[in-house]
Amino acid sequence: MTAQQSRRIVLASRPKGAPVSGDFRLETGPAVEPDEGQVAIRNLYLSLDPYMRGRMSDAPSYAEPFQIGEALGGATVGRVEASRDGNFKEGDLVLAFGGWQERSVLPASSLRKLPADLTRPSYALGVLGMPGFTAWHGLMKIGEPQAGETVVVAAASGAVGSVVGQVAKLKGARVVGIAGGEEKCRFVTDELGFDACIDRRDPQFAEKLKAAVPDGIDVYFENVGGAVFDAVLPLLNVHARVPICGLIAGYNSERPPEGPDRMPLLMGTLLKKRIRMQGFIIGDHYGPEFSEFMAEMGPWVKEGRVRFREDVVEGLENAPKAFIGLLEGENFGKLVVKLSDD
Amino acid sequence: MTAQQSRRIVLASRPKGAPVSGDFRLETGPAVEPDEGQVAIRNLYLSLDPYMRGRMSDAPSYAEPFQIGEALGGATVGRVEASRDGNFKEGDLVLAFGGWQERSVLPASSLRKLPADLTRPSYALGVLGMPGFTAWHGLMKIGEPQAGETVVVAAASGAVGSVVGQVAKLKGARVVGIAGGEEKCRFVTDELGFDACIDRRDPQFAEKLKAAVPDGIDVYFENVGGAVFDAVLPLLNVHARVPICGLIAGYNSERPPEGPDRMPLLMGTLLKKRIRMQGFIIGDHYGPEFSEFMAEMGPWVKEGRVRFREDVVEGLENAPKAFIGLLEGENFGKLVVKLSDD
Repeated sequence: MTAQQSRRIVLASRPKGAPVSGDFRLETGPAVEPDEGQVAIRNLYLSLDPYMRGRMSDAPSYAEPFQIGEALGGATVGRVEASRDGNFKEGDLVLAFGGWQERSVLPASSLRKLPADLTRPSYALGVLGMPGFTAWHGLMKIGEPQAGETVVVAAASGAVGSVVGQVAKLKGARVVGIAGGEEKCRFVTDELGFDACIDRRDPQFAEKLKAAVPDGIDVYFENVGGAVFDAVLPLLNVHARVPICGLIAGYNSERPPEGPDRMPLLMGTLLKKRIRMQGFIIGDHYGPEFSEFMAEMGPWVKEGRVRFREDVVEGLENAPKAFIGLLEGENFGKLVVKLSDD
Repeated sequence: MTAQQSRRIVLASRPKGAPVSGDFRLETGPAVEPDEGQVAIRNLYLSLDPYMRGRMSDAPSYAEPFQIGEALGGATVGRVEASRDGNFKEGDLVLAFGGWQERSVLPASSLRKLPADLTRPSYALGVLGMPGFTAWHGLMKIGEPQAGETVVVAAASGAVGSVVGQVAKLKGARVVGIAGGEEKCRFVTDELGFDACIDRRDPQFAEKLKAAVPDGIDVYFENVGGAVFDAVLPLLNVHARVPICGLIAGYNSERPPEGPDRMPLLMGTLLKKRIRMQGFIIGDHYGPEFSEFMAEMGPWVKEGRVRFREDVVEGLENAPKAFIGLLEGENFGKLVVKLSDD
């Protein structure tokens, strides 16, 4: 191997509130050589996801915080450049946690080989990867939608929400999306086939949401929190289910909002309406359930019954700006960074 | 039948905050004669339960509000005095929703015949009735305690909490109770066999609770809300389950407490720790599940493996004062009013 170069983006400082470009730093250095049992990978696509904001803080959470001065973590799809493990060979397409960098060296045991005929390699970071699995698990295992019920999905044009709504439709539910802006709402109804979509930026958002769910809400797939949840809460039906997948509205908050304290209101509503509210982290559920997901989702994607939109940003150097925009809802579809041509 | 008299307590006015004696009124009138399909009952015991506070308000809730000027509702055990239905005869012991009155006339279809050999008829209002079933359902169907896990029970000396803790012990969990006052706490550990009990009135309550659960909390059976829940929340483990059975601390509140608004904090905790929080109302679960409950609880009570304490108040005229005290935690054991000798 010749001495390859690799660029990477490291965490320069922990963001206070919304991340700014100064919290990130682009570095260049020689690529590392693989040891025995390791594989060297040229990364093609990096997934940018809201959960990364949590790991930029060092508050206790469900995952280790990213370290200052080290490459940020993230899921990647890449090609094997050199392998010192019998299970992988040069040219293999792999799913890895390669991080915000152009080249990674990882233990072979941490990689998953992807089929060579994958139509779009980046789908392994989207509808057929973590976001798709998140959508499917939260909806099917916690939301448990029944035919004829009303399902409401926040962040409906996003990587997770778009899949939640399409699967709920396939299961016979009436589906109302919530998205930021008219263009996203049109996409949600016209391209994804939701029954309705309400613009959360509309000054009459709460009233319009209420009008869009005449039978109330049986399943609310929570991705957002904040003002969206405030409008949803009074519309939840008796025996509603609320999978909590994310709370992006609060990720940049440094302190709790002003009162009154509505925690008792929320608990009282859960009691009076016998609601189940359950948080989940998809990392807990890989294993046999991922195969169950792929068996259902794979054919749906192939047959075009589940559609998936990607927002592809070119070049590692543009990742920080794209990530900052992601937290503001500026992306349109699953955000991935293209790191190199295949 | 001679013209019997019956005393009853009616709702004189809807309580503002904590009920006061003026919200209740004792009335006397002639007993009603049963029509075809109805049964006349002399009530022996009336159950007083915290849920009644909710039905004294006319805010939307899971049950119809009690009506001003009418006898308050409540579960009763009584003897049939006269029957115009083939399934019941004079002298039968029955469970009914007879209300706060000495005599009731009810449709035969609304009654459940009780075994003649019931050791204590009032147990049909307690450990073998609604409170016991509530405890068993919430713990077993939502809490799902595993051997070795830590279960924390609020209102641990009460009708529901005392049963929750004893069943959790029988299922192999470590059980910590929370109760109001040293005497109740001694009862919970010494008589009921909980591993520990913390006095919620102790100024060091939160610290002592934390010390009593070195491995965190896997199941929190919520009966109380308020400051007790505030101390529990940071101690919940990843994958904890929180059945919400009641929120007695807030039942008398007219408005939400001051801020900051901790609703986002609660939802964030549910997400980060993948917690399931679920409200339930036991009225939804009668049917085959009640037989499942009785098959397990009946022998436990008979063999003394589940013990049950009653707080018996004599005479209908004392029911309002006893109920007001119930909301303040003044009762000690399941509160029942003895309406007449058997």
